[in-house]
Amino acid sequence: MKHYAKPLANLIGQLSRLPGIGGKSAQRLAFHILSMDEQEAFAIADAILDAKKNMKYCSVCGNLTDVDPCGICSDSSRDEKVICVVEGPRDVTAMERIREFKGLYHVLHGAISPMDGVGPEDINLKSLILRLQQNDVEEVILATNPNIEGEATAMYIARLIKPSGIKVSRIAHGLPVGGDLDYADEVTLSKAMEGRREL
Amino acid sequence: MKHYAKPLANLIGQLSRLPGIGGKSAQRLAFHILSMDEQEAFAIADAILDAKKNMKYCSVCGNLTDVDPCGICSDSSRDEKVICVVEGPRDVTAMERIREFKGLYHVLHGAISPMDGVGPEDINLKSLILRLQQNDVEEVILATNPNIEGEATAMYIARLIKPSGIKVSRIAHGLPVGGDLDYADEVTLSKAMEGRREL
Repeated sequence: MKHYAKPLANLIGQLSRLPGIGGKSAQRLAFHILSMDEQEAFAIADAILDAKKNMKYCSVCGNLTDVDPCGICSDSSRDEKVICVVEGPRDVTAMERIREFKGLYHVLHGAISPMDGVGPEDINLKSLILRLQQNDVEEVILATNPNIEGEATAMYIARLIKPSGIKVSRIAHGLPVGGDLDYADEVTLSKAMEGRREL
Repeated sequence: MKHYAKPLANLIGQLSRLPGIGGKSAQRLAFHILSMDEQEAFAIADAILDAKKNMKYCSVCGNLTDVDPCGICSDSSRDEKVICVVEGPRDVTAMERIREFKGLYHVLHGAISPMDGVGPEDINLKSLILRLQQNDVEEVILATNPNIEGEATAMYIARLIKPSGIKVSRIAHGLPVGGDLDYADEVTLSKAMEGRREL
């Protein structure tokens, strides 16, 4: 990057540290930012500073929020008896998008993965157990990702909670809507067969 | 974006205004920035502010620079008798990368495009003519893009300069190195034939 002036080289370097932004994209973004109105460019920087300063994790569910407890946890119209356990804050957004789930969430901030040295004590699990002990919860829905780590995490949590008598469920595996049976992998297809329902 | 807290929604909105960053990417970037160390996230914002504050256009060639005149214009080891005309600052970087051109540059900041209402007076052309009048320039190399606007701009500039007796050249069109003749479009192929050289 010797052809760039230092402030530009620095900007390119910083942008290329973001996920999915390679050297070329970082270059294009940097030149675009420099060609923007000063006010517009500053708005981007301010948005980063502002979000970083004001967003925190909800002390109840662990979701990203600017108020504590978060808007979902403090919403009295939601059903406190059902808790949906997800891996990350983005999963909360995905679930909220379907506008069907009216319970509360618990964000683990990761999944158990012995290969990566992530054990049960490394994720936000203790506070879930505490929530279940202190509140009258009837069902825990495990909505961790449908991959090895997500499955392992779901299994671990299920085994942990079951003795307490709380109902534990796992979101369904199967063919995605609009998908093509022909293109489905065997594991998904076998899960879809296993989970078939009478019509 | 009603599921997001305001600072997060604002960050996603700001990021999605960047070129090539759609809603989904902006979301991913925003969540990544929030998961970064405070110091790292602030470094990105600072890089934007710093670059925007300290980068300006060289008063001689129009290139992006943090000092005026820019490093290339003030480099006495470069050949002042040759000026390479390009459309944007990124083209200067591309040319510099080949490490062969030792002359100076002139950045037009655009190309003539009647369709988009961009005329000769809307690009950085007047200062080029002034440079040619005030300095002893022997050759102007037109390295505008090989598309309709770039060609039109090159033609226009060539016609403007030629009467002064300065040599005007255009970079070669042809097949890209490593390319496949089979996949070349007809215009490129015909340009490659037209520009053939005896071996």
